[in-house]
Amino acid sequence: MEERDPKSIRTQSFPMSGGDGTHSYARNSSVQRGGIFNTMERIRDAVVATLDTRKHFKKVVRIADFGCSIGPNTDSVKNILDAVKIKYQQENNMNNPEDLEFHVFFNDQPDNDFNTLFKTLPKNENCFAAGVPGSFYGRVFPRNSLHIRHTSYTLHWLSRVPGENIGEPNSEAHKEQFKKDMENFLEARSEELVPGGLMIVLGLCFSDGVPYAQTLKGFVKEIFLGCLIDIAESGVISEEKARSFEIPKYFPYFREMKEAIERNRSFSVEMIEEIEKPFEDGSISHDLIVSMYRGLYHGFMAEHFGQGLVDELFDRFSKKLTEFPLDDFVKTTNDRECVIVLKRNAL
Amino acid sequence: MEERDPKSIRTQSFPMSGGDGTHSYARNSSVQRGGIFNTMERIRDAVVATLDTRKHFKKVVRIADFGCSIGPNTDSVKNILDAVKIKYQQENNMNNPEDLEFHVFFNDQPDNDFNTLFKTLPKNENCFAAGVPGSFYGRVFPRNSLHIRHTSYTLHWLSRVPGENIGEPNSEAHKEQFKKDMENFLEARSEELVPGGLMIVLGLCFSDGVPYAQTLKGFVKEIFLGCLIDIAESGVISEEKARSFEIPKYFPYFREMKEAIERNRSFSVEMIEEIEKPFEDGSISHDLIVSMYRGLYHGFMAEHFGQGLVDELFDRFSKKLTEFPLDDFVKTTNDRECVIVLKRNAL
Repeated sequence: MEERDPKSIRTQSFPMSGGDGTHSYARNSSVQRGGIFNTMERIRDAVVATLDTRKHFKKVVRIADFGCSIGPNTDSVKNILDAVKIKYQQENNMNNPEDLEFHVFFNDQPDNDFNTLFKTLPKNENCFAAGVPGSFYGRVFPRNSLHIRHTSYTLHWLSRVPGENIGEPNSEAHKEQFKKDMENFLEARSEELVPGGLMIVLGLCFSDGVPYAQTLKGFVKEIFLGCLIDIAESGVISEEKARSFEIPKYFPYFREMKEAIERNRSFSVEMIEEIEKPFEDGSISHDLIVSMYRGLYHGFMAEHFGQGLVDELFDRFSKKLTEFPLDDFVKTTNDRECVIVLKRNAL
Repeated sequence: MEERDPKSIRTQSFPMSGGDGTHSYARNSSVQRGGIFNTMERIRDAVVATLDTRKHFKKVVRIADFGCSIGPNTDSVKNILDAVKIKYQQENNMNNPEDLEFHVFFNDQPDNDFNTLFKTLPKNENCFAAGVPGSFYGRVFPRNSLHIRHTSYTLHWLSRVPGENIGEPNSEAHKEQFKKDMENFLEARSEELVPGGLMIVLGLCFSDGVPYAQTLKGFVKEIFLGCLIDIAESGVISEEKARSFEIPKYFPYFREMKEAIERNRSFSVEMIEEIEKPFEDGSISHDLIVSMYRGLYHGFMAEHFGQGLVDELFDRFSKKLTEFPLDDFVKTTNDRECVIVLKRNAL
């Protein structure tokens, strides 16, 4: 077997804001939570349909959540646990599903706030939790050691800012990095999963054919970058510093995600769906946008610009946003969710 | 199988001082590290002698360290890994021990500083680490899920301050709590270990027959309590408050440890040894005693007395100690180490 060093893959780490304060990820991830709830039933059904508990599964089921951050995803894990119990009862005539025990692993970067995560873990007597530090773009588990893996809203985070010249947004380089990262992610997961094991991916993508500037993300990003340039022009930071601020993120178009998935031959694709997420009444507000940006980007920005500038930038961003009526945001195309269920082929 | 709720056992949690600052456990655990290095060879030999890798062991070996705190015990884990590799090579003619992968679990209370632990984990390409929050006096892993468990210098920490009336040191209640805790500890471990799996315990105990007051720990504790009473008499805290400060700790005599171990029938005792730890030149100093007390008790004291009093107390303690020549400490009886290796019986 080929030797791989799970820690050799160069990654940059950008933890969500920790703790549970006003600007923390835990309090500002309502969109993530919304997505999780909407697709829960779909995922539960897919797990029940595709899982074969008669092979490779014993009375301890090992489940991992990749890029767990510090809280809301524990709901997704519970959803998977429920599905596994249903399938065990169906296939094994198990009178007492309490005989089943779960080992649940929560993975994220080593500088994720694991201490907060551990304090918020749900209590469940048949479920034992562990935290796993490390980048999921490399191996973080032994071979053949897990039954079900899950990740939600994580794969748009690239392992690093791509390319040497980051002065200008370079979509082609970001796209290439996404392809490479997906390759590494799926390769590592295929080694870690038992044959017949499931990989569940919940993510965001753009609708095929919609230009970036017409998406909600593209529209808001333009406003945000405008604030940065304004600050640069006032002389507080150099324009070069402002323009070199780049986030290691890439939202794929749905077909790009599909291609990346299908490129790996270790899995069979049990489900790959694009789900429309229309704007609901009250689902968007100026404050919500500011909170989300803060929750997601605070860490990066403090690192790039220094802590002092972050508050000023968000004050400007907040004021600037209100110059646009809410309708301007509602008119953009919201991103789609993609729900993917893969099954590890037998060796 | 009897139903047990792993979280139902009431425990109090007293984390070591976190981080890596001057008063942190990481920087003030030289005695613990000394003990670990002295007994490493003995433990490695015992693992090689008793482990049967041909049964119940596959190419992924699961190892757990209980009460890992935030650093030095990773050395003990490496020692066990080395022993396992040696035995695999002996028994399986394994040309390439790199085929072996390790899943290593570091357990401690949920309020242990896991973030610091994760930052200090050694890099090893065949070794995957996870943190496991929870009291080891209950179940923290699924049944039948681990091959080797290890704990060093932890079992003298009781799960709680025993008894309702804690106004006076109550050795009998502490002793009873120790017996009960050991019972719970061994019962939980016996469920978590695979048949043939090893439980390694490294701990401190008193030599049978030596009165507490003649031990180093007893002698120092008297001085420390004296400082507390002094502060109470100066009126800063009530005497009741001072006298009700009690630490959930019990150092067993060697025979008590032996009895506790032998009471559990799920294990065979492969090794139980008492090792003398004579004072070496320069191994003891006034400053070292103060540092150790700070590293170990800072958390408790801040909780019981409030942060403000802790510095004053340690200033007094430091001054008071210097009234005793070093020879007074050297003349006491140092505690012994006990090294225990247990093997899980077949079911």
